[in-house]
Amino acid sequence: MNNTGKKIPVCILGATGMVGQKFLELLENHPQFEVVALAASEKSTGKKYGEIVNWQQDLPLPSKYANFVLHECKSGIPGKIAFSGLDSSVAGEIETDFAENGYIVISNSKNHRMNGHVPLLVPEVNHEHLELVKKQNFSSGGMIITNPNCSVVGLTMALKPLNDLWNVESVDVVTLQALSGAGYPGVPSMEIVDNIIPYISGEEEKIETEPGKILGTFSNGIIDFHSMKINAQCNRVCVLNGHLECMTVKLSKKATSSEIIAAWNNFRSPVTGLISSPPQLLQYFYESNYPQPRKQRHLGMTVSIGRLQEATFGRWKFVILSHNTVRGAAGGAILNAELVVRQGYL
Amino acid sequence: MNNTGKKIPVCILGATGMVGQKFLELLENHPQFEVVALAASEKSTGKKYGEIVNWQQDLPLPSKYANFVLHECKSGIPGKIAFSGLDSSVAGEIETDFAENGYIVISNSKNHRMNGHVPLLVPEVNHEHLELVKKQNFSSGGMIITNPNCSVVGLTMALKPLNDLWNVESVDVVTLQALSGAGYPGVPSMEIVDNIIPYISGEEEKIETEPGKILGTFSNGIIDFHSMKINAQCNRVCVLNGHLECMTVKLSKKATSSEIIAAWNNFRSPVTGLISSPPQLLQYFYESNYPQPRKQRHLGMTVSIGRLQEATFGRWKFVILSHNTVRGAAGGAILNAELVVRQGYL
Amino acid sequence: MNNTGKKIPVCILGATGMVGQKFLELLENHPQFEVVALAASEKSTGKKYGEIVNWQQDLPLPSKYANFVLHECKSGIPGKIAFSGLDSSVAGEIETDFAENGYIVISNSKNHRMNGHVPLLVPEVNHEHLELVKKQNFSSGGMIITNPNCSVVGLTMALKPLNDLWNVESVDVVTLQALSGAGYPGVPSMEIVDNIIPYISGEEEKIETEPGKILGTFSNGIIDFHSMKINAQCNRVCVLNGHLECMTVKLSKKATSSEIIAAWNNFRSPVTGLISSPPQLLQYFYESNYPQPRKQRHLGMTVSIGRLQEATFGRWKFVILSHNTVRGAAGGAILNAELVVRQGYL
Amino acid sequence: MNNTGKKIPVCILGATGMVGQKFLELLENHPQFEVVALAASEKSTGKKYGEIVNWQQDLPLPSKYANFVLHECKSGIPGKIAFSGLDSSVAGEIETDFAENGYIVISNSKNHRMNGHVPLLVPEVNHEHLELVKKQNFSSGGMIITNPNCSVVGLTMALKPLNDLWNVESVDVVTLQALSGAGYPGVPSMEIVDNIIPYISGEEEKIETEPGKILGTFSNGIIDFHSMKINAQCNRVCVLNGHLECMTVKLSKKATSSEIIAAWNNFRSPVTGLISSPPQLLQYFYESNYPQPRKQRHLGMTVSIGRLQEATFGRWKFVILSHNTVRGAAGGAILNAELVVRQGYL
Repeated sequence: MNNTGKKIPVCILGATGMVGQKFLELLENHPQFEVVALAASEKSTGKKYGEIVNWQQDLPLPSKYANFVLHECKSGIPGKIAFSGLDSSVAGEIETDFAENGYIVISNSKNHRMNGHVPLLVPEVNHEHLELVKKQNFSSGGMIITNPNCSVVGLTMALKPLNDLWNVESVDVVTLQALSGAGYPGVPSMEIVDNIIPYISGEEEKIETEPGKILGTFSNGIIDFHSMKINAQCNRVCVLNGHLECMTVKLSKKATSSEIIAAWNNFRSPVTGLISSPPQLLQYFYESNYPQPRKQRHLGMTVSIGRLQEATFGRWKFVILSHNTVRGAAGGAILNAELVVRQGYL
Repeated sequence: MNNTGKKIPVCILGATGMVGQKFLELLENHPQFEVVALAASEKSTGKKYGEIVNWQQDLPLPSKYANFVLHECKSGIPGKIAFSGLDSSVAGEIETDFAENGYIVISNSKNHRMNGHVPLLVPEVNHEHLELVKKQNFSSGGMIITNPNCSVVGLTMALKPLNDLWNVESVDVVTLQALSGAGYPGVPSMEIVDNIIPYISGEEEKIETEPGKILGTFSNGIIDFHSMKINAQCNRVCVLNGHLECMTVKLSKKATSSEIIAAWNNFRSPVTGLISSPPQLLQYFYESNYPQPRKQRHLGMTVSIGRLQEATFGRWKFVILSHNTVRGAAGGAILNAELVVRQGYL
Repeated sequence: MNNTGKKIPVCILGATGMVGQKFLELLENHPQFEVVALAASEKSTGKKYGEIVNWQQDLPLPSKYANFVLHECKSGIPGKIAFSGLDSSVAGEIETDFAENGYIVISNSKNHRMNGHVPLLVPEVNHEHLELVKKQNFSSGGMIITNPNCSVVGLTMALKPLNDLWNVESVDVVTLQALSGAGYPGVPSMEIVDNIIPYISGEEEKIETEPGKILGTFSNGIIDFHSMKINAQCNRVCVLNGHLECMTVKLSKKATSSEIIAAWNNFRSPVTGLISSPPQLLQYFYESNYPQPRKQRHLGMTVSIGRLQEATFGRWKFVILSHNTVRGAAGGAILNAELVVRQGYL
Repeated sequence: MNNTGKKIPVCILGATGMVGQKFLELLENHPQFEVVALAASEKSTGKKYGEIVNWQQDLPLPSKYANFVLHECKSGIPGKIAFSGLDSSVAGEIETDFAENGYIVISNSKNHRMNGHVPLLVPEVNHEHLELVKKQNFSSGGMIITNPNCSVVGLTMALKPLNDLWNVESVDVVTLQALSGAGYPGVPSMEIVDNIIPYISGEEEKIETEPGKILGTFSNGIIDFHSMKINAQCNRVCVLNGHLECMTVKLSKKATSSEIIAAWNNFRSPVTGLISSPPQLLQYFYESNYPQPRKQRHLGMTVSIGRLQEATFGRWKFVILSHNTVRGAAGGAILNAELVVRQGYL
């Protein structure tokens, strides 16, 4: 809620896709935001959402959205904030159009992420980067804010407290990524049942570049990228939701296992009052076989960590699990919007 | 066949298990070995194999084995070579008993692998280590020969030509291992459908230690372990057969991508005449999304490699796939027996 | 709650199994029942539940149970009601022991179901059968009450309103049953990934006999079994939770499609005030591809129905989906206990 | 081979699809047919097959096809026989075009199946229906021959010997169908992992109508449809290959279990010399949990049967398994072409 006590009207771009659906699920009862418009591709324009959407969430479509008539993805539709779950093939131009016309665009797509004037945000990690929007200079007052790739969010959250205390020098990460990350229809079942695909287009590059920006230091309106070296290998596995990442990390300073676990468990958001940010941001599991996608993904916005062990060359290895469409996409984007409100940008 | 032209009689220890079953499948038409006895746990003794086995291979039980009456796993049963697919909880003592009583024991279990007098063999990689058996001094003439952990075989084969040319300094490896590697009944379906288990008991330790022995140099009857540093993280995934491994490797000398691929594709066995050794030991795939368990595991004794790319710190990353019950277990053990015959130890 | 306002103390027999775990999950916040003791097999006696249980539910073990010390499954432990999730191999004697010693035994096992003095209950369908317990004559005041096989519950609920209006003459049913129905460890993953097992031991017999008792008429202390003829074929499929059943049903009287759907949607429980009984017992879905296990199982105690069509010989075909460990096991058993309280048997 | 000893040139329509790929796999070493041309949709025309195909078979693309340049699906391309794996949305017109221009069209699509002049063939079941083509009167000498829906082939084969001996009056069948039956990309993985879809568009209608034609009697150039009444319910399950069908069948005359099994096991093709027709057409399994997709689908052109039991109303119930892309599609179509050659139509 803004200071008038009324909910802020928001629209969803790409409302029929997997991320769009998750936006609706997570915003159904949100105390600050009220979905007032849904937009999708031209061929759906004018049709009722409930009739056109191929709803893929486990819980049913919230009934209040069924009769929304779909808009085209063009500025002018109702809403002050535009949550974008658009595919990167179209997100760039459409999001720019909305920002130019005064919307606060909360993007989940890669197009603007590495732009020097666009904040790439995980609010609990680098909320101060939000100030970058001041450089965007849209005369309309609009702005574009992005959240990272779904595999990058959990990774940067797990690294943040380690970096603060001991500086992260390098990361080796192998991801085992869930099917929902590929959108819909996404991966054909014939490709992935009883199989693994050791390749996700563009993913390794994102994981190797985005954390440097997120964990970079912000001063004088410029982000000084973190110098950590990241080596990523990405796999698609037959899991519905939840990205698992096997990490090996080099810290600059000496740490003990219990200090690292304490750093994770005690990690708190520097900015308070964000509704979608859980009290426990990182949760360490001592069970030798945790975290597992099906056992920990219900934690939603909390990132699970387990199996911390010493590795070669004085490094540390561990495993993280984050929910790719909640923390890694729609939930992270909503959190960004909450930060915008909290910091008074709206 | 040995030089008399007759097949060598062999017995299978642990014949009802997953590895035991694969032994039968692979030996059905083997030109050198003839299965003459099957042994399993005490409770099956005296029963017909076809009635007691819970056959789990995709192709049906070769009919000639159905009426074999099961022996107890005690020396004295027919056979000169004893192929052991026994579980490590019992393999140690039983295999020693057979060796003491004159059998050539070809073991697939971990118990004797790291013993200084026991060769840990991948014939195409370190056939010369077989000579270690001379130190075993069983008065009976028996001996114990082992093959490595199922994840280690493919890994050492992929490393061998790189190590010969450029010396391997370090390895980071994350495995995505198939269900058949856990034996039978193995992993409960409730645990692994729509899930990953980021832990396999004892597996990381084996991967971090066994390659040092296999790639060690043998002189004066002693193996000088290779000094490469290995960092392993192991996952069980919902795939029936075929272990996939994401590797990052540091070489001591400069190499190019095309030189590395050529080294793999041109890798040939130094010892010839091994029936189960394929002409192409390593096959590099240029497709960006290969190797995949379901697409390459049919290659059986050939290890598939793909996705070679430069990594951080001057390292190389790539992905390998090997069939865990063929190259990684029963097939590798049979290859060891072929080496024993070829080198004149029988 | 009974009339004193205090919760009724209950114990769980077979607390570590799949049904036992679901009992704990569903009773965690139950307003009438308070779990005061957990019992399991002898080898676990004396150990803490949190340390011994192999927790398989998606949500974590409710923390309040972690420190419960396990009892042996013998009468004498705390609790007035004993919820039994015991395996049928031991349930018979143990449940009798508890009933003889004054407990109200709510059994989920097959052992006593077809006993002429034991009610086989789905409270919304045949609550009046509860009176059968008067014939049990345990001097202790104890009694045994059973709920049906997990596939039978949904089936009888879907048939009940049809039978009331048009009399059911015959049923053909093919089940596609979930993995959790097989308990833990249950079906080995090697058996069911990319596969179907068209056989579940004893299941077809239960489906063909239990509905006759449940839908039978009760008078003068005797159940007159319903004469409907049932033909069942059962399959185990690679689904975690939710039994799907393809049914074809012959009714004695003429009905229309819309009348049948109305009969389902308007079906209400004749006995009110049962906490675990949902307002909507049966929900018909008009979508052509519903119900699906992953899309409807979250409905828990509500049975989903879809795809009603005319079939050959004037019959009707349709598909039902019920959650096998909620409505089909633990949830159904808790409902039975609620009925016992509601009817004043405790 | 025709009588000149040379192979007959054939082309594949829809060569990049799942059925088209299976045609190539099965024809690679066929002694009678030589693939001389591949055709696919317009957008692929002129491109090399190996570069454009998304090969989905477990074994790799036979190398000899990789450099074939794709034709458009228009008559005029090389080949006397045109095997069509086209989708039904385009198959009707294209197949007619090829027949009008002199090709023998072997279609796997539904479009022409129920046409009174088009044989719907399972050669071992109703080879005499081939004579229907004489009514087609294409001046070019071309003709159209179809094979049934993938679920219908196994069903009619299992019914044929029963019908010959005891007359089949009615059939209730519930199918559990594999993913490959939906083509490529087919079923999205997000829809089917840990799930079942109890609906396949148009499938129930095909199963309820096609067997009447196939098992009909042919005389005076007309097929007198069989009067058996069929009731079908179809499910898509998470299995890669192999359709399982749970059947309940009413016979007009009395039969015993052993007579029925003997009828199946002794069923032989009335027409001999068909290369793709296996000696054992139907194989009965006595194991209580067979047939299973992963255990019996390797039998390819042989249909597996198991679990024969008496059912209500004097009926018989049993389970069949047939490989949907081999016996149910490409293999069945090739068999039809072999029949055409054998009967001298070419």
